[in-house]
Amino acid sequence: MKVICDGLALSDAVSKVIKAIPIKKNNSILESIKFMAYNNTLTLLATDLELAIKKSIIADVKIEGEALIPAKFFAELIRSLSTEQLKLDTADGKEVLIEYGDNKGIIKCGDVAEYPNIEEVEKKAELKISKKELKDVINKTIFAAAAEDTRPILKGCLFEVSGDNLTVVALDGYRLALCNKKLNGADNKEEKFVIPARSLSEISKLIENEENDITLIFDKDKMLVEADNTVIISRLLSGDFINYKNIILKEFNTTAVFSREQFSSSVGRASIISRMSKNKLVKIEIKENYLTVDSNSEAGNIHESIPTKTEGKDNIICFNGQYLLDFINVLTDDFIKMNIKASNSPCIFTQVEGEEYVYLILPMRVTA
Amino acid sequence: MKVICDGLALSDAVSKVIKAIPIKKNNSILESIKFMAYNNTLTLLATDLELAIKKSIIADVKIEGEALIPAKFFAELIRSLSTEQLKLDTADGKEVLIEYGDNKGIIKCGDVAEYPNIEEVEKKAELKISKKELKDVINKTIFAAAAEDTRPILKGCLFEVSGDNLTVVALDGYRLALCNKKLNGADNKEEKFVIPARSLSEISKLIENEENDITLIFDKDKMLVEADNTVIISRLLSGDFINYKNIILKEFNTTAVFSREQFSSSVGRASIISRMSKNKLVKIEIKENYLTVDSNSEAGNIHESIPTKTEGKDNIICFNGQYLLDFINVLTDDFIKMNIKASNSPCIFTQVEGEEYVYLILPMRVTA
Repeated sequence: MKVICDGLALSDAVSKVIKAIPIKKNNSILESIKFMAYNNTLTLLATDLELAIKKSIIADVKIEGEALIPAKFFAELIRSLSTEQLKLDTADGKEVLIEYGDNKGIIKCGDVAEYPNIEEVEKKAELKISKKELKDVINKTIFAAAAEDTRPILKGCLFEVSGDNLTVVALDGYRLALCNKKLNGADNKEEKFVIPARSLSEISKLIENEENDITLIFDKDKMLVEADNTVIISRLLSGDFINYKNIILKEFNTTAVFSREQFSSSVGRASIISRMSKNKLVKIEIKENYLTVDSNSEAGNIHESIPTKTEGKDNIICFNGQYLLDFINVLTDDFIKMNIKASNSPCIFTQVEGEEYVYLILPMRVTA
Repeated sequence: MKVICDGLALSDAVSKVIKAIPIKKNNSILESIKFMAYNNTLTLLATDLELAIKKSIIADVKIEGEALIPAKFFAELIRSLSTEQLKLDTADGKEVLIEYGDNKGIIKCGDVAEYPNIEEVEKKAELKISKKELKDVINKTIFAAAAEDTRPILKGCLFEVSGDNLTVVALDGYRLALCNKKLNGADNKEEKFVIPARSLSEISKLIENEENDITLIFDKDKMLVEADNTVIISRLLSGDFINYKNIILKEFNTTAVFSREQFSSSVGRASIISRMSKNKLVKIEIKENYLTVDSNSEAGNIHESIPTKTEGKDNIICFNGQYLLDFINVLTDDFIKMNIKASNSPCIFTQVEGEEYVYLILPMRVTA
């Protein structure tokens, strides 16, 4: 492989694909970027076997071929160069000669033949959605996906398409986040996919906050999304996602509407104190026209109250304060609605009007 | 103690004094801030026993007194409040009631009687210097102070006053940084103080980059500096500083003048590669009108050259690349001068004209 390309374009491509390099270092071949030079295009590819990111740039390809270059060194070196033209030359495949101006570096290469093959995605289904809406739906659900490996399917978000509706759901056994978006056209087939949270996070970072559409392409066990000459391919998680509809209660004894910002501030302060306690408990007590937020630990205690518009009877419910903050802080609504059945039933947070989102949190049991 | 004060002013004061809270947590009493309310002034004090920071704000003192409030909780809580007025009330000294608007928090307090006493500094000597020059002289030397505890005195910077000259020196056994500044007036007594690097770092952060003077006040074993109602008191390091003058060579076989920025870029890239090797070695070879920068490790190698104006014979010398970057990147000069006696003698970097700074680095021995 022998190519001449723009240093800035190459540096940008490296910074995009390097996101797919595994965080845990236990497979050194995956710590490299695969370079493929064909037809005046230089393509960079990195993968952790679940997620692959591929980016192509224009290049003057003198000799076609491939190389496997350690990502970290190459990224650092490229970043420190100015915008000038670069020449990459892998004479024998064992090292790459990088020429910039009158200077040069050599980086030892891996064996490109050992690099895993990334299978093509054969389109079986697709999902068109505006970039802005996709970023938003990821942002509003991804934090509720499980972080632990105990139930692998919960490390993803369920994407459920039905008619002109997309529902995205994430849950980890303690709380659930659900967000609905309208799709263009009502002729979508019913489809379900579970996309790993890490892949969604990278997709969200890759796409701009624009109104125009992006297409997610699915086959049986993979998905592909492309934006700005960058392709992300992700494995889908297999298995049945939890039947979330059964969990979401519809009938309540108390509903309260209050300012999201006031609630966020009060719960934030209560959490500073409750973080010192084992259960990180924040107590919410709902009265006729206000609610109180209380927390208590060896560090001290907090007692705040904010005005509400309450319907139904008074109620008390306790949560891990962090679970409240996680969803409150991704929303932008001025007001939110809290729906309680009982102190020991899941609590549901919704829009005051509209059904864009549902956040469910299991309460903590408190012994008097 | 019972006071009413502005939340924003209090938050600012907490953020200033909290810098003196010990990093290593092995004395819980020092993890609190001492509050002192007297004469319509609320004073906050924190110390790690080497460094103390004290800040006063205007307050409506209802009941005079003192309290010891855990720094971390209080800082987090205060930061999350808006600018409104706060009431702090320590009824029995065991907890502080914080009232903000209609809400309140309680934080458990420590026993203020157990807090260490910070002795006054009795002026035995003083040093007047512009804030800008003080920040600059700290910035240009502090990185060369020793990080390890093996020789405690080397964890400080020597401040040496003689006539109208201030010389600041730091060294760690591998390299030395020296910076000279002119003082106002030539009537200063000869004085020597060794100020802990950590204290200098906090002083540098505290003061603004302004032309006006600041005064450092010294007694036998302490110093005090005050800016914007914030007082920093630091212990001085005791013992004899190394006689640095003997180390700095005056006669050389090779001198080379070159662009600081070009040298910084080349050494930076060479260090990316050499960081992978045990000795982090970067080789500089000086020829008649250029120098080369080389590095080599299992990751690859770098070979760059930059133009120089050389006097004397050709020479080769090797360094830990990081020691070069540490001083190159705090300078702003367009050109610097490198002075070599021999491959195994300390190498000296100076201004091309002028004697503001001297950086000395011990070379690494390389066996062919």
